[in-house]
Amino acid sequence: MTKLPSCTAEPIAAAPRFASWLATKNDLTARFVAAGRIPGLINLAGGLPEPTTFPTEELATIAREVILKHPQDCLGYVPTDGLPELRDAIAARYSSPALQLRRENVLLTASGTQSLDLVGKVLIEQGGVIAAQFPSYVGAMDAWRPRAPQYRDLLLDDPAFDPLSSFEGAQLVYSVPNFSNPTGKLVGVAMRKAMVNAAQRTGVWLVEDDPYCALQYDGAPLPRMLELSAQHTREGGYEGPVVHLGSVSKELAPGLRVGWVIAAPEMIQMLTAAKQGADLCSSGLNQRIVLASMESGLIDRMRPPIVDLYRERRDALCAAMAEHLSEWFEWEVPVGGMFVWATARDASIDTDRLVSIGTEVGVLVGPSSVFDPWRKNRSALRLNFTANSPERLAEGVRRLANAVRKLRFGTA
Amino acid sequence: MTKLPSCTAEPIAAAPRFASWLATKNDLTARFVAAGRIPGLINLAGGLPEPTTFPTEELATIAREVILKHPQDCLGYVPTDGLPELRDAIAARYSSPALQLRRENVLLTASGTQSLDLVGKVLIEQGGVIAAQFPSYVGAMDAWRPRAPQYRDLLLDDPAFDPLSSFEGAQLVYSVPNFSNPTGKLVGVAMRKAMVNAAQRTGVWLVEDDPYCALQYDGAPLPRMLELSAQHTREGGYEGPVVHLGSVSKELAPGLRVGWVIAAPEMIQMLTAAKQGADLCSSGLNQRIVLASMESGLIDRMRPPIVDLYRERRDALCAAMAEHLSEWFEWEVPVGGMFVWATARDASIDTDRLVSIGTEVGVLVGPSSVFDPWRKNRSALRLNFTANSPERLAEGVRRLANAVRKLRFGTA
Repeated sequence: MTKLPSCTAEPIAAAPRFASWLATKNDLTARFVAAGRIPGLINLAGGLPEPTTFPTEELATIAREVILKHPQDCLGYVPTDGLPELRDAIAARYSSPALQLRRENVLLTASGTQSLDLVGKVLIEQGGVIAAQFPSYVGAMDAWRPRAPQYRDLLLDDPAFDPLSSFEGAQLVYSVPNFSNPTGKLVGVAMRKAMVNAAQRTGVWLVEDDPYCALQYDGAPLPRMLELSAQHTREGGYEGPVVHLGSVSKELAPGLRVGWVIAAPEMIQMLTAAKQGADLCSSGLNQRIVLASMESGLIDRMRPPIVDLYRERRDALCAAMAEHLSEWFEWEVPVGGMFVWATARDASIDTDRLVSIGTEVGVLVGPSSVFDPWRKNRSALRLNFTANSPERLAEGVRRLANAVRKLRFGTA
Repeated sequence: MTKLPSCTAEPIAAAPRFASWLATKNDLTARFVAAGRIPGLINLAGGLPEPTTFPTEELATIAREVILKHPQDCLGYVPTDGLPELRDAIAARYSSPALQLRRENVLLTASGTQSLDLVGKVLIEQGGVIAAQFPSYVGAMDAWRPRAPQYRDLLLDDPAFDPLSSFEGAQLVYSVPNFSNPTGKLVGVAMRKAMVNAAQRTGVWLVEDDPYCALQYDGAPLPRMLELSAQHTREGGYEGPVVHLGSVSKELAPGLRVGWVIAAPEMIQMLTAAKQGADLCSSGLNQRIVLASMESGLIDRMRPPIVDLYRERRDALCAAMAEHLSEWFEWEVPVGGMFVWATARDASIDTDRLVSIGTEVGVLVGPSSVFDPWRKNRSALRLNFTANSPERLAEGVRRLANAVRKLRFGTA
């Protein structure tokens, strides 16, 4: 009897199932999530806020009120570029005698991460060049991965660093001048000016990512590159080369997913076109909640206690590090942000291995290898201080010191 | 006296300022927004819901309650793939005896548009091929524009249409089987099965975009391609080739920006990697509001009055069209969705021009030329019936008939 051809649905063509950039995605988040399930683990790896800082009662009341008062804004579609009243409020908040901002300078987004995604879509040709400070924010590299960019390292600390030649030919320059993630470093005023000047001269857009500006523990804020680059249109709005990114994630609540871009009107229009294809518009409810939280003074009232809480935790982390880790690591105490960056005195300390051992002894920290596209830095660590009490920070550092001893001597 | 060189910041390099895909963006939204500012205009062009259907009081109460009860979910970060409890609820909602869905089959997104953006990132190589029904949803083409795809027209109504050869070599197939935007057409069961079979045999992902399923006015729902393609993993979850997209925009409130993708676990993981770089996670507040609206029965209670309201409006629009437009246009009464697609009996009627004249006489409708990438259909119109009362729909159609007379005879 002749065997009939099979009727089961066998594939007849074997095309690649997924776009090629997905082969390059980092597994950091998956590793952190898996480690997060370990009972009793002290997590110093993430960048989470302290949940008790969320103004739960106030936001519950505000949410109810804005829906009742503005049902159409909250429940219907808002314009792709955002609720006009909140765009105006952000423009007013960042304006100064030297910097006049208007609604046309502001795009509302669904978080700092979305701002980075939109910037990538608008500026990066497939395979184009991004010039950035390294080590750099993993989330920015994640946002730009689908555009498969090449990276150029801006060596800001190198005496031979020349902004002009470093910027030329790049499709964008990326900088986190305030308390950079992961290093906590502050870019000084002279360097900010030099970078603004190079952006103006080369015509390259300068992306100033500033999620941590509200979290400054010592000293006065330095002028933003946005302000240092103030050039104005005939009508009075900003039209310089800086693309400034901000959000409410660090000063109100990340769960609202409200961020913004401040830039020249032409850039805002292009980003709006990209946002139209990314999510059509953000939630009007969340934008109305943020506007009410600004207008009622809630955000301003929250800042001093948050800064005090995190300063205390930074100091607790650094004190424990001084006691338990200074033999093997060195670091600068950051004046703001959420992280301490610790560099091994002996470059043969492999922090990828140290992170694995740390996880075994009950502490999770971030390994330096994930913060640049070349995985070139293998002997530093990022430690978060915002999400744990001083006691748990100290215990986490003790466990980390045990992990170092295990790595060095095979025993804690 | 020697003139010193100028110290103003002159650009020294003239790089292209924006990525090349932005030169291809459509101006439809800008045109509609501009027209929307004309006083007294009747807007039949958009795809907006009737705002009085929003359950304002209920959602105001729910918003307050979920923040108080789940502050960490609402105000902190939720997982990138979404609130686990809502993923479970969506899986249960779409499961049937033939289709077993699990949490791993569901990704929560920030709208149907974001689902399309993520699908594009995960599947489309720069310049790759998308096979789709045309005329097709403008928002999908907007979402995929940054990947610069090529399109292949799936001629479902052509007797010679062969799904297998039409699918082969495409990176994805895109279909809106229920009451497609813009045509309102329903894809029949036999064609759904043929497309599922072709997807299984070619290994091409089949994207079933289903935003309108709740808006069916006549007859019983047809089986989803998701269900027709049910193949299960050893543990019981779905692992077929369909990527099903849904949202609460049409059945609760678009302002919440909550959508979802249902697909094989491997696809959900890739989409989650793309979402990590797109916005890190969606708003937990909005996800908690949707979950509470499902659990309390609010969404189920809303459906019958919305369906009744929109059915009445569809009938009012079609009655007015029969009275005023049947000399020049023909159409099928759609059994669901938000739109009537009217094709000119005389193909020399240029609907781009008709839309301009319509705007002058106080009615805005959608021209057919924007619904395919080749602008090949120039003599049809899309009319929305959900956002206006029966009286305004009738007046809009009378104005449109005036516009046709002006176009044909130079006078109304």
